[in-house]
Amino acid sequence: LKKLQKKICDEGIVLSDSVLKVDSFINHQMDPKLMFEIGQEFVQRFEGKSITKVLTIESSGIAPAIMAALQLEVPLIFARKKKSLTLKDNVYTSKVYSFTKQEENEITVSKEFLEPNDKVLVIDDFLANGQAALGLIEIIKQANAEVSGIGIVIEKSFQNGGDKLRNLGYQVESLAQVSSLKNGEVQFLSQKLEEVTA
Amino acid sequence: LKKLQKKICDEGIVLSDSVLKVDSFINHQMDPKLMFEIGQEFVQRFEGKSITKVLTIESSGIAPAIMAALQLEVPLIFARKKKSLTLKDNVYTSKVYSFTKQEENEITVSKEFLEPNDKVLVIDDFLANGQAALGLIEIIKQANAEVSGIGIVIEKSFQNGGDKLRNLGYQVESLAQVSSLKNGEVQFLSQKLEEVTA
Repeated sequence: LKKLQKKICDEGIVLSDSVLKVDSFINHQMDPKLMFEIGQEFVQRFEGKSITKVLTIESSGIAPAIMAALQLEVPLIFARKKKSLTLKDNVYTSKVYSFTKQEENEITVSKEFLEPNDKVLVIDDFLANGQAALGLIEIIKQANAEVSGIGIVIEKSFQNGGDKLRNLGYQVESLAQVSSLKNGEVQFLSQKLEEVTA
Repeated sequence: LKKLQKKICDEGIVLSDSVLKVDSFINHQMDPKLMFEIGQEFVQRFEGKSITKVLTIESSGIAPAIMAALQLEVPLIFARKKKSLTLKDNVYTSKVYSFTKQEENEITVSKEFLEPNDKVLVIDDFLANGQAALGLIEIIKQANAEVSGIGIVIEKSFQNGGDKLRNLGYQVESLAQVSSLKNGEVQFLSQKLEEVTA
């Protein structure tokens, strides 16, 4: 998505070789029109998948996910993130370790919202080590539902999450693939870079 | 909003005299089309207010807020909720006590996203004691910006948040006003009830 990559170039702040801050249009302030277009792009990329639900994690995943769900005309579920979980047997849970925050969270989804015949599109804002996506996939599997694919707003291609997921056979669609943040500069995977500068 | 009230009647679960669970269409699973219509209704109710930004709190406020922001064609900012705050001087902060969770959170908004000439619409999913809305208003005031109004999806009219905010002179628009949850039954303020049963 060209507009997204331009926005990353213009407003993204490279904090280190591995951290890209996009607070002005994704993680804190949001550009609703861009989010709508992101949703639209996901719908196109997963066309024909007969998706019945969209699944994401609070908080930053909610906006792109609801825009996809709106255009797919299916419900959105957002998994809840908790540091400790009060024991409940009516929820699916999995553990997600955040390398950025260096903490483990338990994510949960109520059993009533995922059924064995569901075809679930996973959406998230970032893909780095793949921990969040793998946690969501685990929950979908616990429900015996099907993973239709994984839609990511920004993939850090220099980390191994994308490879992990693709090697597992999942269709991963990342709307921006950042190949490097070295020297304070955002580089995209070559094909995409040409689009940006075209 | 008639559709919202019907949904509350059909799917809302009354957990106690003060707790209404709407996990199937607002707080965990979301109905994107209903959220779009909620956004549309907010836009109508605050017409002519020249709103420049929408402000909410993560997580459940994000979906209705981004749908309002999309149709208003303005950015959305979501305040972050943290239990403890690492000292930073580039953020506005205020304290929000949650009676439901019995915990105090600090909410923060980066200074760069609110300016003195901003006219800010506050959106949230629930209004009970008004703590969250008052916290957001305090942040808007710290930025010397203007509060254009407060848009709420579900107001518990039997708690005092709505009165507090209206007495302070703010335009509060609640799309469903629940007057009682006694005996496991949802009652709406009379005027609205007629609409539902009409």
